[in-house]
Amino acid sequence: MLEELKQEVYEANLQLYSSGLVIFTWGNVSALSKNGLVVIKPSGIPYETMKPKDMVVVDLKGSVVEGELKPSSDLPTHIELYKACSSIKGICHTHSSYATSFAQAGISIEPLGTTHADYFYGGIPCTRELNDNEIYQNYESNTGKVIVETFKERNFNEIPACLVKNHGVFSWSLSAKQAVKNAVIVEEIAKMNFQTLALNANSTVLKHTVLDKHYQRKHGEKAYYGQRS
Amino acid sequence: MLEELKQEVYEANLQLYSSGLVIFTWGNVSALSKNGLVVIKPSGIPYETMKPKDMVVVDLKGSVVEGELKPSSDLPTHIELYKACSSIKGICHTHSSYATSFAQAGISIEPLGTTHADYFYGGIPCTRELNDNEIYQNYESNTGKVIVETFKERNFNEIPACLVKNHGVFSWSLSAKQAVKNAVIVEEIAKMNFQTLALNANSTVLKHTVLDKHYQRKHGEKAYYGQRS
Amino acid sequence: MLEELKQEVYEANLQLYSSGLVIFTWGNVSALSKNGLVVIKPSGIPYETMKPKDMVVVDLKGSVVEGELKPSSDLPTHIELYKACSSIKGICHTHSSYATSFAQAGISIEPLGTTHADYFYGGIPCTRELNDNEIYQNYESNTGKVIVETFKERNFNEIPACLVKNHGVFSWSLSAKQAVKNAVIVEEIAKMNFQTLALNANSTVLKHTVLDKHYQRKHGEKAYYGQRS
Amino acid sequence: MLEELKQEVYEANLQLYSSGLVIFTWGNVSALSKNGLVVIKPSGIPYETMKPKDMVVVDLKGSVVEGELKPSSDLPTHIELYKACSSIKGICHTHSSYATSFAQAGISIEPLGTTHADYFYGGIPCTRELNDNEIYQNYESNTGKVIVETFKERNFNEIPACLVKNHGVFSWSLSAKQAVKNAVIVEEIAKMNFQTLALNANSTVLKHTVLDKHYQRKHGEKAYYGQRS
Repeated sequence: MLEELKQEVYEANLQLYSSGLVIFTWGNVSALSKNGLVVIKPSGIPYETMKPKDMVVVDLKGSVVEGELKPSSDLPTHIELYKACSSIKGICHTHSSYATSFAQAGISIEPLGTTHADYFYGGIPCTRELNDNEIYQNYESNTGKVIVETFKERNFNEIPACLVKNHGVFSWSLSAKQAVKNAVIVEEIAKMNFQTLALNANSTVLKHTVLDKHYQRKHGEKAYYGQRS
Repeated sequence: MLEELKQEVYEANLQLYSSGLVIFTWGNVSALSKNGLVVIKPSGIPYETMKPKDMVVVDLKGSVVEGELKPSSDLPTHIELYKACSSIKGICHTHSSYATSFAQAGISIEPLGTTHADYFYGGIPCTRELNDNEIYQNYESNTGKVIVETFKERNFNEIPACLVKNHGVFSWSLSAKQAVKNAVIVEEIAKMNFQTLALNANSTVLKHTVLDKHYQRKHGEKAYYGQRS
Repeated sequence: MLEELKQEVYEANLQLYSSGLVIFTWGNVSALSKNGLVVIKPSGIPYETMKPKDMVVVDLKGSVVEGELKPSSDLPTHIELYKACSSIKGICHTHSSYATSFAQAGISIEPLGTTHADYFYGGIPCTRELNDNEIYQNYESNTGKVIVETFKERNFNEIPACLVKNHGVFSWSLSAKQAVKNAVIVEEIAKMNFQTLALNANSTVLKHTVLDKHYQRKHGEKAYYGQRS
Repeated sequence: MLEELKQEVYEANLQLYSSGLVIFTWGNVSALSKNGLVVIKPSGIPYETMKPKDMVVVDLKGSVVEGELKPSSDLPTHIELYKACSSIKGICHTHSSYATSFAQAGISIEPLGTTHADYFYGGIPCTRELNDNEIYQNYESNTGKVIVETFKERNFNEIPACLVKNHGVFSWSLSAKQAVKNAVIVEEIAKMNFQTLALNANSTVLKHTVLDKHYQRKHGEKAYYGQRS
């Protein structure tokens, strides 16, 4: 079942690997099917040997619907995000180097330049720490829930990524491949922010008019970037 | 029309991409023809699938003369530069990592070593911020104009690049390919300046005699570097 | 003799080289056979030209049992580790860039994120400096002994790597290839820690509940990461 | 004439390029023949198109003995070094990123770890600035002379590299290829020193006993590293 989506999720996982954001099995990508099933990378399987048919199909309660392998251990985090925002159709998780360093430092990735504004309509926030109960019981679900909590006053579509404190990055989009692309962008702007703050610790956040201009020219109603006629 | 120049602009865009300075569609290169037309990368088209015939020909008012695709959204910035200095025949725009970090920090790239002096006869300046009117109306033209303003007391030929505050790099030269080469050099010296300042925040600017010696031995009347007999 | 293990040690050394952690001959990998012999890279031989049969077989007193080449000069360090912990079956030594920088700064690699906790159940310690007697007499053995001293109150299995002050990294595991994998992970988390501390010098160590959760879900009795059923 | 040495110098220049230390034409390698002639890369010729026969043969006064191209503009620096120390048979010049950053910051590369001590018996010094006369008259010769001045109390054989203030690196050895290898090592230890100092600005220099142990076990009379029996 869902052979096309399995192929797409497989390819998105390979794109993540070839992007250099992930070593060993430190990342995973999933997609949501039209009928509400999640297709996700199996847990701990190397990208190099993985096949499209190894992708695991699960329902939104986390039960395996098809597949011989166990799904990624981060599946419950993905599920919380799919449930929280109906326009999310693909999710990517990484421990990419610079973005994870911001997560470890507990610092959000603020918009310091137009590269950021081209994709994110505001800072990429960092969640609070989970408390001990949240860690020992349903840790992976609670990781999803703390992202949702962080987005209470934010818009998942306008800021399609979040840092999880001391952990890494979750990014999302309208498809698995777009979610991977967002993960690559998060890492790139994290690197630039790292360098910017090292050059000038008092670098200020992009003023709203520039943020607005760059975000809207790509994503707004009157977008004029690219070939959308 | 201008098939040769299209091929050259196409190749210069591919060189930019293979240089590693650009991911996705985060850069563009143009050239000016002898009869005053601009050949430029189309907007938002991936480098991997782009063809020479996709290059767009526009006049200096920004109207498309030939081509089925929309030109790069940064076209009006390129046009301002071509209009401001008649010896500019090629322009390159990037969000390369280190140079953009200087732009985000609002710090110019000062000459700290002879590598800089081999190509730039002084610091690579960073523009002022645009004001809100300049952002909401003709943003891309105004980006070009603020570069021209920054070069009021500088020489475009002696300092063939500029940082745009919070944005990225524009570089230029006598051809599209030379403009790309200058973008690569800007990134390389930005990286070295980043490291130099991290080692010693009080590193001083190269003294004028060394700046002069290195610049002139490559670019002066009595240049003796290379094979120009 | 031990042809299979020689092949494995050979491949582990090549993996180390292709991982990019090592240039020239700046690293070596060994394994311990079931009958207590050590198979190790020969000293100073380039990875590119090395052959499986060049691997040297030595006993735990350091005497060559088979092989025409001299074993790695770090052999006595490997031997001290094999003798100190019976579950160590493979050892890897590198001067990888970030981890060695921590060793040079005399700073242990503390667990600042879950990437660390997925593999190391606590900080990766840095040994004390050797004293002059330890340097002039049996330097390489004493390098092993100071690691063993550092692990007096630590568990070799839970923290499978150590920084040697001013020198580099030793990592170990149940096989030569797993030891190389641990060396790659040490370098990756060293890089992230470097960046984290640059962003926020007061970044705090991961709280124990998260360290415990992540380590146990991969390595504990109730581990549920991966495909172990 | 000197066809073998030309081939060797050609290959050494290509090794320098493929090492990643050099972009465009930012480096050059030379060798000294047994009869006191210098074989050096031509000035400004790209590595990709260069041929062995393009290598230029000059005497120690700097006059071209054979070759149709102009020699590297840094030739007079090479000559000063060959004249100053009879055991130098190959020289390499680079603007490699980290080492040049130390040169720009005016900071020598002190021995902070055993990687350094394996190749350099002490810090890699940084020259003083040239004065204006030295810059305007015989700049390249004076660059060589200020290196020689810096080595008045140092041993060229024990410390086979020098930083030139605000400029870059010169390294040397018993052959052109060994000089390139030393340039790669200088860059690698410069990167580690950069990181070490960022982690701990008060990192102390390696104590003499360790410096001595590591240097002597590779280069001393009783050296036991490698296969020299």
